[in-house]
Order: sequence, then structure tokens, then C-alpha cells
Amino acid sequence: MRLTLHTDYSLRVLMYLAVFPDRLSTAEQIAAAYGVSHNHITKVVQTLARLGLVETLRGRNGGIRLAKRPEQISVGAVVRATEEDFDLVECFRSKTSCAISPACRLQGALRDALAAYLDVLDDWTLSDIAANRSGLARRLGAH
Amino acid sequence: MRLTLHTDYSLRVLMYLAVFPDRLSTAEQIAAAYGVSHNHITKVVQTLARLGLVETLRGRNGGIRLAKRPEQISVGAVVRATEEDFDLVECFRSKTSCAISPACRLQGALRDALAAYLDVLDDWTLSDIAANRSGLARRLGAH
Repeated sequence: MRLTLHTDYSLRVLMYLAVFPDRLSTAEQIAAAYGVSHNHITKVVQTLARLGLVETLRGRNGGIRLAKRPEQISVGAVVRATEEDFDLVECFRSKTSCAISPACRLQGALRDALAAYLDVLDDWTLSDIAANRSGLARRLGAH
Repeated sequence: MRLTLHTDYSLRVLMYLAVFPDRLSTAEQIAAAYGVSHNHITKVVQTLARLGLVETLRGRNGGIRLAKRPEQISVGAVVRATEEDFDLVECFRSKTSCAISPACRLQGALRDALAAYLDVLDDWTLSDIAANRSGLARRLGAH
């Protein structure tokens, strides 16, 4: 059971921007800080902009910044929006081939479990996970 | 976020055996009932036998049956044992390359969320998810 890299990197980009709120950052800086591909970060930034979580300013002095305050960004909401699917098992999809699907109560158990998982993440904000700002800045700041 | 097919099929095999407690079943029957590969079911049965959840009797009249009563088999325990990894994000692995790992509180949030997920599944037994035995038998029984 894993989250996609897209979700992982989305959270990392948001954390980076939360750590440096007083400047515009670039995808290059973020990619270098985490040692991941610039292309991947660019795609993640596009997703986050579409979700209204970051703003991108074009031009020579352009860059990326948070569109909301960190305490207004829920980790649960980010995971719900960036994770492509929560189809824990095959019968969660609209077309299932599992013979017992209508009579099986596993789906209910897994839906309850998933709700509990996301409920916990709804209690955390970007501000919480980036609370150690000086420690994070030291680790990200060389780039 | 998905469970592996191995976990999905493990739960399905256990449900099949719970529905027909008074006979020995074969991997062929179970594979046919769900329309999945016999090879995959055989591997799942090996895992379940290793975990002490099913017994396999060899020979012409051999077959597979539950090694415990359905109410003694926790869905949470099955998922914990069959799911290969719960490394929700890269930094859960022993060797992480994420620059901020020591200062980041996301890992704690995700660990709490995963614990809540598994806690819910711990409250369900095989007996619960296979409670609609007649409905399940009708859907599985043609094979």
C-alpha cells in the first residue's frame, strides 16, 4: 500500500514553499533540493496550481509560492486531490469482475478503514508537517 | 493507494473457504469461482498455509480448508501479513534519499493514518465479511 510519487512530491513541494514563504521559488530549486527530476516537479506544480494551492508568476523574476497560508492547507485534502485512485481492491472500480461483489462485506470494511485513514490526515495541516521550519530550511536551503 | 492482488486474492480465498466449511476445496474450484488464474490462487494458498490460516491435505481426496474458525481470523491480521509493504512514501524505507527526512513531520502523520486504517480492519473478522453466507454460496457455488 503506497501513495503515488505524485502525491509524495506534491507534499514535498508544498513543504518547500511553506519553509520559504518570503520569496518566489523555482521548480529548479525545489528539484535540486530534493534531488528529483525537474520534469516531475514541474508537473506537480501544475497540479497544485490547478488545485488552487500554489500560484505561479511568469517572467524573468517569476516563480512559485503558496496561494494559501500553510495552516489553511489540509494534508488530507492534498492527498485526496493528488492520489489518482483509492481503489483498494478490484471491486472498488466501477466495472468489477469479482463474482461475489454484491454479497461481500469486505468492501464496507475497507471503505471504513480508508475513511479512518483520511480522517487522520484531515487533522494535519501543511503548517503542522512543516512545523520544524529551521530544521527544514537548513536541509533545503543549500539549493 | 491500492492493496496488492496478493492481499485481495488472499481475502477472497479465505472467504471461499468460510462459505464452504464442510468440504475440502481445491485451488481449481476457487480459481474458477473468481475467474482468476489457478497459478495465482496456488501461490496465495501457499502463503495462507504458511501463515497458519489454511490447511492443505494432499492426495486424490485432498484439498484446502480453513485452519481456524472464521471468527478467529482478523481481516487486519491478514492484510498486515499479506501486503508486501506499507511504505506509503519513500522515506518509510530504510534507505531514504529525501533531504528533509529527519526534520519532516509528514511521516508521523502518515504513520498515524496507517495505524487508524489497520485498527478498523482489526475490528473485522472473516466471519463478518462472509456473513452473507447464502448469498456468497450462490455466487460461488456453480463452480
